[in-house]
Amino acid sequence: MMAKVIVDITMSLDGFIAAPNGDPAPQLHQWFFAPSDSSIQVIQEQLDTTGAIIMGRRTYDAGDKADGFIDNPFDVPHFVLTHTTPEKAAKGASSFTFVTDGIQSALKQALDAAHDKDVCIMGGATIIQQYIKAGLIDEIQVQIVPILLGEGTRLFDQIGNKSIELESTRVIESSNVTHLRFNVINK
Amino acid sequence: MMAKVIVDITMSLDGFIAAPNGDPAPQLHQWFFAPSDSSIQVIQEQLDTTGAIIMGRRTYDAGDKADGFIDNPFDVPHFVLTHTTPEKAAKGASSFTFVTDGIQSALKQALDAAHDKDVCIMGGATIIQQYIKAGLIDEIQVQIVPILLGEGTRLFDQIGNKSIELESTRVIESSNVTHLRFNVINK
Repeated sequence: MMAKVIVDITMSLDGFIAAPNGDPAPQLHQWFFAPSDSSIQVIQEQLDTTGAIIMGRRTYDAGDKADGFIDNPFDVPHFVLTHTTPEKAAKGASSFTFVTDGIQSALKQALDAAHDKDVCIMGGATIIQQYIKAGLIDEIQVQIVPILLGEGTRLFDQIGNKSIELESTRVIESSNVTHLRFNVINK
Repeated sequence: MMAKVIVDITMSLDGFIAAPNGDPAPQLHQWFFAPSDSSIQVIQEQLDTTGAIIMGRRTYDAGDKADGFIDNPFDVPHFVLTHTTPEKAAKGASSFTFVTDGIQSALKQALDAAHDKDVCIMGGATIIQQYIKAGLIDEIQVQIVPILLGEGTRLFDQIGNKSIELESTRVIESSNVTHLRFNVINK
């Protein structure tokens, strides 16, 4: 099976994936830390199918600051898009590669590392937007949290003015999150 | 049963309910004109439960221009928020009241006219935003169309920076639209 490139992200109903300036919005992640049975299946699927992860430097730094990589359940190669490689790796970050030559390079390295599994673009928003705009995304999984944050960092912004058709492939309902999954039809 | 105030609107996955400047985005309304069986149930429910409709002047003018009120299936009182009452009523618009003294007045008149049925806030975006910001909405039904438009008129914008908690009450999946329904918890 061909490896796919997947955006997998949690978003408020009003389209935000983080607080203003990319700061964490804890209300968005409660479903992950107290998952329902149906969400557990979605999380388990993420763990089973993800072969490599790409993230931006801000997401990496935020994870480092929160000690988020110490108990990181994704035991796969991580690729961090950055302008400059940090001097000291984050705690718990044993399998991180810093990529300074752009999104195409990061994707190539991640696909090589993932073998037949999927490459997950974790965020932040600007990284996801760049991959969408470049036509490099095969599937989008959005976990919609029932809240209007009113302000924050928008997921779908600055992706150009060309319509991108999607195909809804799955809807999984849960009490505190709705999991929507789409194929990208015309990249 | 107490009449409820409902936002019912079709939105692209990236949060747009119309093209730029509020112009119609036909891709968003295909599900309505070629509905699946599950969408037919949602539409029938709208027809059964809606007792009055509130819309903005731009939405009214757009409907008029497209002869949209001639075959309007909603045979209920319509209230149009406007600064000035038009000289000539739209074709087919037999039950339209023009309200020039604000959203509270329009809502009061619509609730009176709807009797025990619901008042539906149809749009446009700025009208819906005003009602959300004023804490006047009981339920939100969003029909999410699997497309990224990239640009247009955002539904959830300018609604303030206070988080509004929702409760997901229903998810109905269809091939070309996903119907999400929420109660507004803290207005």
